[in-house]
Amino acid sequence: MTYAAPMKDIRFALEHAAGLWRLKEGFPDLDGGVLEAVLEGGAALAGDVLAPLNTAGDRQGLKLVDDRVVTPGGFDQAYAQFQEGGWQGLSADAGFGGQGLPKAVALAVHEMLQGANMAFALCPMLTLGAIEALSAHGSESQRRDVLPHLVSGAWTGTMNLTEPQAGSDVGALTTKAIPLGDGHYALHGQKIFITWGEHDLARNIAHLVLARLPDAPAGSRGVSLFLALRNSVEANGVIGARNGVRCIGLEHKLGIHASPTCTMAFEGARASLVGAPNQGLAAMFTMMNSARLNVGLQGVALAEAAYQKALSFAKDRRQGRAEGQTSAGPAAIIAHADVRRMLLGMKARIAAARAICYETAVLADLARCAPNPEGRAAAKAREDLLTPIAKAWSTDMGVEATSTGIQVHGGVGFVEDGGAAQFYRDARIAPIYEGTNGIQAIDLVGRKISADGGEAMRALIAEGHQIGAQARGAGADALAGLGARLEAGCAALAHATDFIVAQNRVDRRAMLAGAVPYLQLAGDVIGGLLLAKSGLSAAGTDQRQNGAVRAVYAETVLARAPALVPAIELGAAALFEQSFADFEA
Amino acid sequence: MTYAAPMKDIRFALEHAAGLWRLKEGFPDLDGGVLEAVLEGGAALAGDVLAPLNTAGDRQGLKLVDDRVVTPGGFDQAYAQFQEGGWQGLSADAGFGGQGLPKAVALAVHEMLQGANMAFALCPMLTLGAIEALSAHGSESQRRDVLPHLVSGAWTGTMNLTEPQAGSDVGALTTKAIPLGDGHYALHGQKIFITWGEHDLARNIAHLVLARLPDAPAGSRGVSLFLALRNSVEANGVIGARNGVRCIGLEHKLGIHASPTCTMAFEGARASLVGAPNQGLAAMFTMMNSARLNVGLQGVALAEAAYQKALSFAKDRRQGRAEGQTSAGPAAIIAHADVRRMLLGMKARIAAARAICYETAVLADLARCAPNPEGRAAAKAREDLLTPIAKAWSTDMGVEATSTGIQVHGGVGFVEDGGAAQFYRDARIAPIYEGTNGIQAIDLVGRKISADGGEAMRALIAEGHQIGAQARGAGADALAGLGARLEAGCAALAHATDFIVAQNRVDRRAMLAGAVPYLQLAGDVIGGLLLAKSGLSAAGTDQRQNGAVRAVYAETVLARAPALVPAIELGAAALFEQSFADFEA
Repeated sequence: MTYAAPMKDIRFALEHAAGLWRLKEGFPDLDGGVLEAVLEGGAALAGDVLAPLNTAGDRQGLKLVDDRVVTPGGFDQAYAQFQEGGWQGLSADAGFGGQGLPKAVALAVHEMLQGANMAFALCPMLTLGAIEALSAHGSESQRRDVLPHLVSGAWTGTMNLTEPQAGSDVGALTTKAIPLGDGHYALHGQKIFITWGEHDLARNIAHLVLARLPDAPAGSRGVSLFLALRNSVEANGVIGARNGVRCIGLEHKLGIHASPTCTMAFEGARASLVGAPNQGLAAMFTMMNSARLNVGLQGVALAEAAYQKALSFAKDRRQGRAEGQTSAGPAAIIAHADVRRMLLGMKARIAAARAICYETAVLADLARCAPNPEGRAAAKAREDLLTPIAKAWSTDMGVEATSTGIQVHGGVGFVEDGGAAQFYRDARIAPIYEGTNGIQAIDLVGRKISADGGEAMRALIAEGHQIGAQARGAGADALAGLGARLEAGCAALAHATDFIVAQNRVDRRAMLAGAVPYLQLAGDVIGGLLLAKSGLSAAGTDQRQNGAVRAVYAETVLARAPALVPAIELGAAALFEQSFADFEA
Repeated sequence: MTYAAPMKDIRFALEHAAGLWRLKEGFPDLDGGVLEAVLEGGAALAGDVLAPLNTAGDRQGLKLVDDRVVTPGGFDQAYAQFQEGGWQGLSADAGFGGQGLPKAVALAVHEMLQGANMAFALCPMLTLGAIEALSAHGSESQRRDVLPHLVSGAWTGTMNLTEPQAGSDVGALTTKAIPLGDGHYALHGQKIFITWGEHDLARNIAHLVLARLPDAPAGSRGVSLFLALRNSVEANGVIGARNGVRCIGLEHKLGIHASPTCTMAFEGARASLVGAPNQGLAAMFTMMNSARLNVGLQGVALAEAAYQKALSFAKDRRQGRAEGQTSAGPAAIIAHADVRRMLLGMKARIAAARAICYETAVLADLARCAPNPEGRAAAKAREDLLTPIAKAWSTDMGVEATSTGIQVHGGVGFVEDGGAAQFYRDARIAPIYEGTNGIQAIDLVGRKISADGGEAMRALIAEGHQIGAQARGAGADALAGLGARLEAGCAALAHATDFIVAQNRVDRRAMLAGAVPYLQLAGDVIGGLLLAKSGLSAAGTDQRQNGAVRAVYAETVLARAPALVPAIELGAAALFEQSFADFEA
């Protein structure tokens, strides 16, 4: 089988976990019918057009012919269908040709495309980033001349940040922008790891590039953002000559083989400044939240695809006799307790991660569109808090779930023809790019928690206690068990938050040493909070996240969460007392 | 850098965790000098000969030309060096040309070869299995005619178990053995996933094949073991004509690209019966413990290789400024707390898994060679108990550690040229083959724990409490912290063991539902036990597993172990109440 978009689970997460209808005031045209129509259209594109190309794209990969990148067979027709459907512009401004829907709804389609074909879907994901950057920081002419083409999908966008010596530390970049005297600049330098930096799917590419002006201060305060089109555009709109930027190499990667990861040479590429000089990093940061959430949802999408594949295999594959089996012949392996444990373990974690991601998306919409400024500020604070968790927790989960997906398949899982292996390879990039998960954790403890002394987190914990108590009172249902585990998790998270806040003043190295397990604890607890919340919200209706998912999440994830506190409190001494030279073989 | 065998860590694990010198009575010729010489020789073979071929072998892969398998360039010379050094026969009987060393010492070399080049090292690993099977069950003529060639490495061996419909359930196999009337049999059938089933490294291949006699009962009680040589051998020892067995396909796999995974067609291959008719599965089981331990050590070896690569990268790669840094310029990333957390997390888990594996190996030697029968029986009981844990816990750790190894590399980790990705791909098979880790857990709870009502485990737990108390009294050292965590872990393991023993009578599905987390808890605790034991044993000497490793293991692994109890006690109801049809998209 190929991927089928999990319509009902996505809608359940949007409505019952993330409270989508909080957006009604900001998006009066949105209703259940519109939502259903968009999700159905996205599901058709994902399932019918993109999913069938996923395996072939992985095997065929990409070719660099001179400085042209040749995409796998069928990608061009699929992109044409994507473009014709107007899918790129779902959440873009109507003034530039978009449909003005909430990000949360656009993200639901994004999840489907990623689950169907992550390598392909990275291209629109990068374009979306370019749309957001130009919408927020572009000049009137940049927006007028470029945004409509990006929003329609006629052109695609890229982000050119990384250089060999400048990865996690973007401020170390050296690409130069030389003023040409006519208000434009010539870019000189080399960028690496540029996703969809060059390809044959669209007529033009809008490169957003971080570079330094001649008089720029050192470090991150001297970085500016530029826009360079791959091809110039004549006054009549005709696509003109190539600009001084080209792809000079493609990475040979573990996964996402059909997504070109380009080394880009800027050799005097003509560019215009986006936003103010030396404010490039700030401009990048305004869209960082969005990009990080998109990557988090890739973890959800890959885990879902792996789950579907494993579930289908477990129903078909017959092996051994199940405990208590009365029928003759071998059992479908889904009848074995350990196979069910694996499948429901995946399902429960996916449900939690999906809830976290859509909650973050709805908050992002509220941060822009809530009716009053207090509501916008509160939503923004929580969006900022949740974003690194959505990114890191979901992508770690994606790696774990795709690994479990292989395990369900047994030997077939290790064979590339089995189809499970590709998810495992593709999923491994998500904890790395758009800020490694270690960087996300540092952002969480060093910026988000430290900036307000833990206030936003404590507000969330208070809600968790409240929901936990409500769920605990829900009777004999597994929701009650989840509620009890949630309250214990909230207590541990409160304790750990105090530790992080204190260490920020006392011993920042100890704070940083505890950052990753702290983020894990926060994700475990917030995932449980949202599962409990959705259970309460959906009481009496069709229950998608039912007893099994709640029980498995409560007993196998949330029950272990408080035991992360010792890892959080490990401190720096244990990590730094040891010279690694002592460990040499 | 390429792999360098971790001589000191291996020797520390052998001597201080596994108590190698308990074998002195059974192996009077073994002393520190012999041990050092063997380890040094193995390290040279691994580091100088095999490691340099690892990346190239992965990229080049294998070719099937007609029914011949062409191995990657350099593999033939490397195999010749392996053979000339007598490495295949380290632990084999001197009567057949072996060196009669303990298995534990041979396994130390095995770890080195696996760490250097897992794809290559699988070939000797399979040969070792064939040596053990024929040593234990072969007729006098089978042993005389075949064992010397296997022990010298002139021939290699295989295990032909799996068929498309018979994976975890070997008893479902259908390959037929037709009596030829001259005491031999003709094998007819197809086997899949046969590691090193065909290749060009050695002059002949001894296939051990599970098949059914014409009158055999159904299921696993009707399976017999056969020996079929790829080529006949003339009376004068000259290698003769090909037998009726050939490779008809190679799997395209996620990893171990240089290890041929063959589909073997048996088309009337002439074979002889090994052991008694219909006792094939029992014969396989006698060597199963050994094979499973070997696979467990692959997890250790791959994790070690990934650790070395990540450590080397973290020392070289400069990025960002570290907290408290006073020097100018970017810091080596090993100065960042989170990178140290990752590296020491790998180091600590590797140390624990290595200790479990070598402890199991020494027990296997004691089970054969302890001076008195009580000692042999006690060692055997504990070897049986530890084997599934050594296999599953170490290989799960191998997957996790190789994933962390990628993460330390950042973007470079996702690029195949970076070298970290191959370990991640190669390591993924180990939780699957030689009995999936789910099967190991079922073996642990359903056979090992249930057979003696938990007695062997309780004896181990009692020792754990004793060592925990001793370590706790060791003063301010991290050993004291490890001791306290160990005692808590032992209490949880005792509780969980009671649960498993009880469920075996009450609700076997609940027992099976808790099997995998139970095995994880047992591994977490036993790993801690052996780290504490080695710390006490090595007090006052060169401390390889020092404070950092102990603290990280205690606070990040052992501290979380008791929280596995809810997952163990989850029960079957939560897993089986739900129809998976309800989850359809």
